[in-house]
Amino acid sequence: MIVVAVIVAAGRGTRMGAGRPKALLPVAGVPMLRRAAAAFAGHPRVVTVVAAVPHPDEARAALGPLASRVTLVRGGPDRQDSARLGIEAARDAALILVHDAARPLVGAALIDRVIEAAATHGAAVPALQPPDTVKEIDAGGAVVATVPRERLRLAQTPQGFRAALLREAHARAAREGHRATDDAALVEWAGGRVVVVEGEPRNLKITTPFDLALAEAILGAEDNRSVAQD
Amino acid sequence: MIVVAVIVAAGRGTRMGAGRPKALLPVAGVPMLRRAAAAFAGHPRVVTVVAAVPHPDEARAALGPLASRVTLVRGGPDRQDSARLGIEAARDAALILVHDAARPLVGAALIDRVIEAAATHGAAVPALQPPDTVKEIDAGGAVVATVPRERLRLAQTPQGFRAALLREAHARAAREGHRATDDAALVEWAGGRVVVVEGEPRNLKITTPFDLALAEAILGAEDNRSVAQD
Repeated sequence: MIVVAVIVAAGRGTRMGAGRPKALLPVAGVPMLRRAAAAFAGHPRVVTVVAAVPHPDEARAALGPLASRVTLVRGGPDRQDSARLGIEAARDAALILVHDAARPLVGAALIDRVIEAAATHGAAVPALQPPDTVKEIDAGGAVVATVPRERLRLAQTPQGFRAALLREAHARAAREGHRATDDAALVEWAGGRVVVVEGEPRNLKITTPFDLALAEAILGAEDNRSVAQD
Repeated sequence: MIVVAVIVAAGRGTRMGAGRPKALLPVAGVPMLRRAAAAFAGHPRVVTVVAAVPHPDEARAALGPLASRVTLVRGGPDRQDSARLGIEAARDAALILVHDAARPLVGAALIDRVIEAAATHGAAVPALQPPDTVKEIDAGGAVVATVPRERLRLAQTPQGFRAALLREAHARAAREGHRATDDAALVEWAGGRVVVVEGEPRNLKITTPFDLALAEAILGAEDNRSVAQD
């Protein structure tokens, strides 16, 4: 089965205060996009890596030697358009993994779990139970309810889909003008069944400068551990 | 206004695989309980610090020189009982902050925000919007819905309350056998209005060995930064 990874690099980096596309920012010296692309390009079950980016030339430079292994396409005005354009470029895929470049620490075991579950069930998202009590608030910022968190999950990427299912959901959403915050939500909306597999705490999404510092701290601690084990 | 901090150290450390109370585990060399107690004992608006712990003698040793500033009480079989016993020991409080020892990185600015909002509104919890898309799942692990996250918040501690409001909620819950996952949920259940203030990403809850490593990585990165600024 041909597995294609589509990396979406749509973030403008506004909350990072960086003034340039978020995926080009370095995490411990290596651009997020290159880290994410390396995780998929180096995975034995992933055949092709596509990246939908705002500026293919800039992205090529950021990818460095990995550029020859990644098909670059120009993204659209938002994440959903960028994902759709990336999926269109994944022509021969039987199974598509859609991943956010803002999760550069994704690991091989998680990619395996998502491929496995998506191949079996058609659609799979990795997710974690919230570690904190979850509150629902009203428009004034007062708590309306404490929501039982046993049935809530914080979704990550990569999200995996049989290609036909994902293509049909995106095509229908484009026709009907439907917007959603992730690809699984489009498939849910189109009537598909999405299963959840266990996410990885390390696979955090980098949105703020704190998240970036956190990712670098995780990598630094892992480096120290591996040095100590030498 | 007399502000008392009640630190709850109820976790048995099961998910840490440590075989001893979680609050006694060191984070970068300093027990979680001591870190949390230091944040409140060193805060200019906090008059007294109470800690509800499984074993007061062990806790005294873990607190070291800080032990003289902390009133230790023996906790109950679970978090809610421990919080109630701590609150009972906070006799002269007009405003009570209930904090989990498992959040040892709590900062002074957050404590200020909670005190301010609780004094004004009666009850306040710090919380953050989930960074990830939130899914609701069924018992079989399939996604039922994507939940709009604009109105969801991940609650932290310290949670602040006018003392009478919190005492009444705990007393009523004890009488009626009602259980909740945090103190705010008891006050909500008792009909009180709880407002949300902005939490701190750094104020993470330590549940797993990964969380502990993360907390140490954060502290390590901060140390490096402050050394670099010297």
